[in-house]
Amino acid sequence: MKIEYPLDQFLKSVYRLVTMNTDLQTLRLDQGLVLDSGAVLAPLDIGYQTWGRLNNAKSNAILICHALTGDQFVASPNPVTGQAAWWDNLVGPGKNIDTHRYFVICSNVLGGCMGTSGPSSKNPDGQVYGLSFPVITIADMVRAQAALVDHLGIERLFSVIGGSMGGMQVLEWIATRPERVCAAMPIATAARHSAQNIAFHEVGRQAVMADPDWHGGNYLKVGAKPTKGLAVARMAAHITYLSDAALHRKFGRRLQNRDEVAFGFDADFQIESYLRYQGSRFVDRFDANSYLYITRAMDYFDLAAGYNGRLSEAFQAFKGRACVVSFSSDWHYPPADSRHITRAMIGAGVEVSAFEVETDKGHDAFLLDEPEFHDAMAGFLAASAADQGL
Amino acid sequence: MKIEYPLDQFLKSVYRLVTMNTDLQTLRLDQGLVLDSGAVLAPLDIGYQTWGRLNNAKSNAILICHALTGDQFVASPNPVTGQAAWWDNLVGPGKNIDTHRYFVICSNVLGGCMGTSGPSSKNPDGQVYGLSFPVITIADMVRAQAALVDHLGIERLFSVIGGSMGGMQVLEWIATRPERVCAAMPIATAARHSAQNIAFHEVGRQAVMADPDWHGGNYLKVGAKPTKGLAVARMAAHITYLSDAALHRKFGRRLQNRDEVAFGFDADFQIESYLRYQGSRFVDRFDANSYLYITRAMDYFDLAAGYNGRLSEAFQAFKGRACVVSFSSDWHYPPADSRHITRAMIGAGVEVSAFEVETDKGHDAFLLDEPEFHDAMAGFLAASAADQGL
Repeated sequence: MKIEYPLDQFLKSVYRLVTMNTDLQTLRLDQGLVLDSGAVLAPLDIGYQTWGRLNNAKSNAILICHALTGDQFVASPNPVTGQAAWWDNLVGPGKNIDTHRYFVICSNVLGGCMGTSGPSSKNPDGQVYGLSFPVITIADMVRAQAALVDHLGIERLFSVIGGSMGGMQVLEWIATRPERVCAAMPIATAARHSAQNIAFHEVGRQAVMADPDWHGGNYLKVGAKPTKGLAVARMAAHITYLSDAALHRKFGRRLQNRDEVAFGFDADFQIESYLRYQGSRFVDRFDANSYLYITRAMDYFDLAAGYNGRLSEAFQAFKGRACVVSFSSDWHYPPADSRHITRAMIGAGVEVSAFEVETDKGHDAFLLDEPEFHDAMAGFLAASAADQGL
Repeated sequence: MKIEYPLDQFLKSVYRLVTMNTDLQTLRLDQGLVLDSGAVLAPLDIGYQTWGRLNNAKSNAILICHALTGDQFVASPNPVTGQAAWWDNLVGPGKNIDTHRYFVICSNVLGGCMGTSGPSSKNPDGQVYGLSFPVITIADMVRAQAALVDHLGIERLFSVIGGSMGGMQVLEWIATRPERVCAAMPIATAARHSAQNIAFHEVGRQAVMADPDWHGGNYLKVGAKPTKGLAVARMAAHITYLSDAALHRKFGRRLQNRDEVAFGFDADFQIESYLRYQGSRFVDRFDANSYLYITRAMDYFDLAAGYNGRLSEAFQAFKGRACVVSFSSDWHYPPADSRHITRAMIGAGVEVSAFEVETDKGHDAFLLDEPEFHDAMAGFLAASAADQGL
């Protein structure tokens, strides 16, 4: 039997096998880090993955920063959860973030639960941290990433890219390590968390903490899990990721496997069924305390606060390019938040391009197929690569 | 000692004493009602209050319909909870809904917990209903109100007015009892509940039902109360009542009784503290199962569904006037929902005036001092009263 298989497909497959490492890679920093709170976290583990090859000049590295509930598996399936790569449509061989061309790095954020130290990790005494894990900030997450980048021997990243909380990390990178980034792409994000976003996070945290199986944060010690509370938190958050229009288009008032309402409290409507599914699926893969710590870090994020309240000062030392992307129907991080960032960058003399993608998909659009967004990313990376002689 | 006291103030005080009944009034319907679900609920209690005097022609009655967590105490303090009248700024002697001039009726909705039969009431066997209480609809709430209006000997209501879920009842009144209403004022409402609103309600219900103190709805029998779950539900709902702009103006990122963030999970931000307060205050005055039943009734509301999907058919038989009010920053029941209602009324030949109040206060604006809204109500009632020779 002869199998027809185009050569480029074959080469891509071989390339994938060679370059896509699906084992959990971890860097241990014995000396740890001093955090914004003043606490010292040591030792510190950083779970990360890389794709592609670092060139000899070490000038082709792209750091991708993940969002609240993301992980380092940006371009290959997560071997622990079995979930598909979360940015499979953008990162890979021949894709816009081309792993033929770039060395792509993605690490699990500090406070997370996928290999990087977080509240479900063990402290030096071998006990699970729980709430004794120090409260962290977006700046702390970036500190950990910078330590990883140091470890990989990279002085200057070609690009730092991220959406949502990932975008906050991008902004933090160019504010605190401006000389280490050539091209920055903050997507669907904000330079500070709004009162409404803090409010939604607080509802989620209260839902987790109201669950008696949370046990004051000690659930892992007693062998329980606050799955109901965490599911409610996820459901509430999930509403904010979608636009009203997207919910209407996807679900409207359609019923779930029935012709008439059942006059009860089962999931009559598809939207109810969908939310319950999102909630229950999430609790299998995410640690409840990590959810508390990471939402807290986002709430605390207010980049201008460290620069006399003037956001443009935060970008003053950044000499690279930036591209700021927002989505018209995103009400979680509305376009106005991105315009605020862009204005500050212009005020700081940054070479910035900014645009709002017209879409009804809401905040989630940054993970979905949005041709305008994807084209802009390709163009921005190509122009930035030309700048760098890549 | 001589006290200076203007005569009109004195007369108003006397009038208040005479006309404002603050005891809980209840009507018992022994025969009960047949509900949309087919269930028969008997006997049925209806808790209600009235203000002002019904004229001899019985032509000056205004029915006010309350919202999800409201009650019948629209114009005088609730003697049970001690809370102020919820529409004190609009209803009373000399106010826009003038109790000198009109006979004002407000009843607790079916499924509620302030005197009208609901899941915390006792069934004929003397047992608390809990989840054996039948699932109700907005139409069922209006059935109960119509029975009360019958009992009061009123054939035709001068006006039916309500905001939010109260507005749904107004729409149901003119659709199913068109000849019984002269002037209808649905405010900040919708003819059907959106997927996003169903989603928020479902989060609230799941939060209640996730609380082990809910005991499958039997908490009153076992002497518990799902206060934590209900508080989370209230917190999530409360976010939808305020606009992002209002939250920013009221709270922004201001800290609560501290100069710096505390690197912990206490309420660092004022918005957190405010939401926790709203949640905890709510559970003292509201029954968790009532919250489930009433949110369910709202989710089920889709007025056009009973009229071949054509909303204008629902208003075809209504020959009175209508005034449809929305608020520009209301994202719970956005102005588009009101425009949908207005278009359908125009299509049905209803004499309708409609307007969107420019405000940053969000959905809650219908309860607050909004001069444009209040003036419009005064004008609408005056014109309608002139129509009726009142």
